[in-house]
Amino acid sequence: MDNADLFLAEAADLLGERGFTRDREIIEPWLTDWRGRFKGEALGMASPASTEEVATFVRLCARHSVPIVPQGGNSGMSGGATPDASGTTVLLSLRRMNRIRSLDNDAGEVTCEAGVILQDLHEAAEERRLRFPLTLGGKGSATVGGLVSTNAGGTQVLRHGTMRNQVLGLEAVMADGSVLDTLTPLKKDNRGFDLKQVLIGSEGTLGIVTAATLRLLPEIGERKVIWVGQNSLQDARRLLLHFQNLAGDSLEGFEVIPAHSLAAVIDHLPYARSPVEGKHAWHALIELTSKAGETEALGALAEEILGKALDLGILNDAVIAANETQAEDFWLLRESIAPAERAIGPAMQHDISVSVSRMADFVDEISPTIEKRFPGTKAVAFGHLGDGNVHFHVLAPSGSTGGEWEHTQGKEISSYVHDLVTEWGGSISAEHGIGQIKRTELGRLGDPVALALMRSIKQALDPNGLLNPGKLVPLAQEGSTP
Amino acid sequence: MDNADLFLAEAADLLGERGFTRDREIIEPWLTDWRGRFKGEALGMASPASTEEVATFVRLCARHSVPIVPQGGNSGMSGGATPDASGTTVLLSLRRMNRIRSLDNDAGEVTCEAGVILQDLHEAAEERRLRFPLTLGGKGSATVGGLVSTNAGGTQVLRHGTMRNQVLGLEAVMADGSVLDTLTPLKKDNRGFDLKQVLIGSEGTLGIVTAATLRLLPEIGERKVIWVGQNSLQDARRLLLHFQNLAGDSLEGFEVIPAHSLAAVIDHLPYARSPVEGKHAWHALIELTSKAGETEALGALAEEILGKALDLGILNDAVIAANETQAEDFWLLRESIAPAERAIGPAMQHDISVSVSRMADFVDEISPTIEKRFPGTKAVAFGHLGDGNVHFHVLAPSGSTGGEWEHTQGKEISSYVHDLVTEWGGSISAEHGIGQIKRTELGRLGDPVALALMRSIKQALDPNGLLNPGKLVPLAQEGSTP
Repeated sequence: MDNADLFLAEAADLLGERGFTRDREIIEPWLTDWRGRFKGEALGMASPASTEEVATFVRLCARHSVPIVPQGGNSGMSGGATPDASGTTVLLSLRRMNRIRSLDNDAGEVTCEAGVILQDLHEAAEERRLRFPLTLGGKGSATVGGLVSTNAGGTQVLRHGTMRNQVLGLEAVMADGSVLDTLTPLKKDNRGFDLKQVLIGSEGTLGIVTAATLRLLPEIGERKVIWVGQNSLQDARRLLLHFQNLAGDSLEGFEVIPAHSLAAVIDHLPYARSPVEGKHAWHALIELTSKAGETEALGALAEEILGKALDLGILNDAVIAANETQAEDFWLLRESIAPAERAIGPAMQHDISVSVSRMADFVDEISPTIEKRFPGTKAVAFGHLGDGNVHFHVLAPSGSTGGEWEHTQGKEISSYVHDLVTEWGGSISAEHGIGQIKRTELGRLGDPVALALMRSIKQALDPNGLLNPGKLVPLAQEGSTP
Repeated sequence: MDNADLFLAEAADLLGERGFTRDREIIEPWLTDWRGRFKGEALGMASPASTEEVATFVRLCARHSVPIVPQGGNSGMSGGATPDASGTTVLLSLRRMNRIRSLDNDAGEVTCEAGVILQDLHEAAEERRLRFPLTLGGKGSATVGGLVSTNAGGTQVLRHGTMRNQVLGLEAVMADGSVLDTLTPLKKDNRGFDLKQVLIGSEGTLGIVTAATLRLLPEIGERKVIWVGQNSLQDARRLLLHFQNLAGDSLEGFEVIPAHSLAAVIDHLPYARSPVEGKHAWHALIELTSKAGETEALGALAEEILGKALDLGILNDAVIAANETQAEDFWLLRESIAPAERAIGPAMQHDISVSVSRMADFVDEISPTIEKRFPGTKAVAFGHLGDGNVHFHVLAPSGSTGGEWEHTQGKEISSYVHDLVTEWGGSISAEHGIGQIKRTELGRLGDPVALALMRSIKQALDPNGLLNPGKLVPLAQEGSTP
């Protein structure tokens, strides 16, 4: 405890009043993940204002063997930014580092500090008639550092890839307090291992991202947002291929929504209604975009593709949003599924992916299997069909009590879903990461060779285990390696 | 030697006659890089036929502590696939593993073994009306394994990225003989560190790539290949921006050729002539492509863009190739620069990159500086302006003798060029990799933090130094770290 006192005094001295706090009221909100599933304790919260301060603070932590939990907007889905209950770690908030350091229109590049909020980045790009091609529900709180560290996905991955695809350069503080600076983007650079790739998606376990250079694209000309009613997920898969063939690069997103989820949203949201008449087993939400200056053809293209799809019998009904307000309304339906499904009652949620071409088969096969094996449950899949990534929720039998069910049958269901997705060659975490919520499952189901490599890399870059302990990398005893 | 004999006997036993040879005549061509700059020795050459054979052979080598030099088409530029002179290593050719395991048209994915030759991959894709969007001069010998291991570039990077961007999944044998299999491509997969990214570009020092799943794109509709005469590299830079703004995704490549290089090619190639009339200080070679089914507009687009450029005064003359034969002729001029410049006399060649926006300034500033500092030399820059990557050759003063000049003044020139490019925040190896040719320079000029991380990762994944020793990763004593 003497040692802790010394550390705390040095931290306060180093970072000043704004930079280090033990004030319970200030820290409290950041000790729990936003979903309220994980709660931890911390010695204090550091909020450095510069990369140099992060580096100095990390060296201080290293000297005192104080583990660090880096945190951005605290809007992660896997508890990756929540400290454990020991109270021996320190929270490291990057939120104060929220400066856009530079934006180069010609090059289409922006250098942001880790604390820049996604929504602010979107606005900064729009002001310059550019856009940052990644978005997700938590854009009002998610930060660049968190997005990079979790290799975030979202609804534009089909066309533009995950966060990894947007990162041109990184700045990160390593476990020994050294600063890796690869911010200057070089389109071609073969000077050895691409170290930024090791850090992207490593959830703060290998280094602390302090800034990133990201690519920006020209603003779009126009978008057409389409809502479709269909008979089956197989038809949605056919429609996806149909759009990929005929719309090519204009296809920006392709999401699927089952009848159950749409009904839940309509119950949940005031004024919400289905964009299409009648009942359909499945719905698809499709977005097409055109380049700036090429606005005329997009509506005609959308109508042509939909007309052909109707002739092929792979959709029942389709509506193209008449204006931006309606387009936003369509997307609001999609974005409200998760909260609407949660409002119904307890459910186990799985963020899974398989090959794009096999996702429809997978859902069609495993949904009835699960409902049969666990009577009274209801399996609901929705989301990013175009990425082979659905959010697969299994709703508890009616009358189940949340916490209790989740820890008994719920747990069994999740293991079963993860077993199945692994058998199908898929991923138990498509976009939400591992954090603390899936570390044991990764240890149980991960490829032993991959797990061994991950442990070796973790050991090499953070030999004293100071960076985000208890996250992502399964311990050897959790693994299936002998 | 007893031990070596035992190893050789076991290797022969394991791989059979086709799989392991000590026949000098067979091995000889593979002991020298194709440019003839490096020559090594080897205990023998293994040519396993399957991933399982590679894995078993690696375990055999590990047991006997025999270092392995993996080799594909032996067309690398940096000696990365040539063994050292000790004769204690074994060559591991992946050329026999040349099967295309699967090709999925709908998904746009092909799984190739490491030994598949790039040209064969192009042809397999074309047969299915798809294309693999990476090409380079050595396509007739370069293999998929080598392309992945060196993160190869080429002339389509501007639009499609380097090899890293094409790799959806990998299979690799690690130093302990375990097999990492990430071949099944998942568009979204956040199960921890992206291990394939660590292997891409690691030049066989961390693992041996045995297969890769690569992305394929739809075939193009049409291409327009344009040759332009200009007054300056700054005008070429302006023209690049002009094309990027107006042609967007249709812009596939943008190469620059100085008058000196064009003259060298015309001297070197029978029947070659300049596509444009008159004398111009610089030339640009530009390729536009259209999607299949959208062929009509491309010619009009090219003419419109060139017309506006002429009005802006950023070009003197331009010719659009009238047909495919002429288009090929234009590209032949570009691809003949390296051999034509070599035919003139000794030169130091530098494969360098800086930010795309600074490349013209860089060349304009350093070329006269070098010619002044080393009287009689001539600096020539050509290549991928659109990627911020030029091949920067410094020709010896006339009368210099190749080998002698290269080892005295030539060496001094290269150090100086590398110093300058490092000062400008650029890369001393844009696309050719480090291999053995630039390892010392990387140790001298590399960021100490990056070098330390590279050494840690190398140590973690290949603790006994069995994989491609002496390549890429600078030894600690070569580094600038204390």
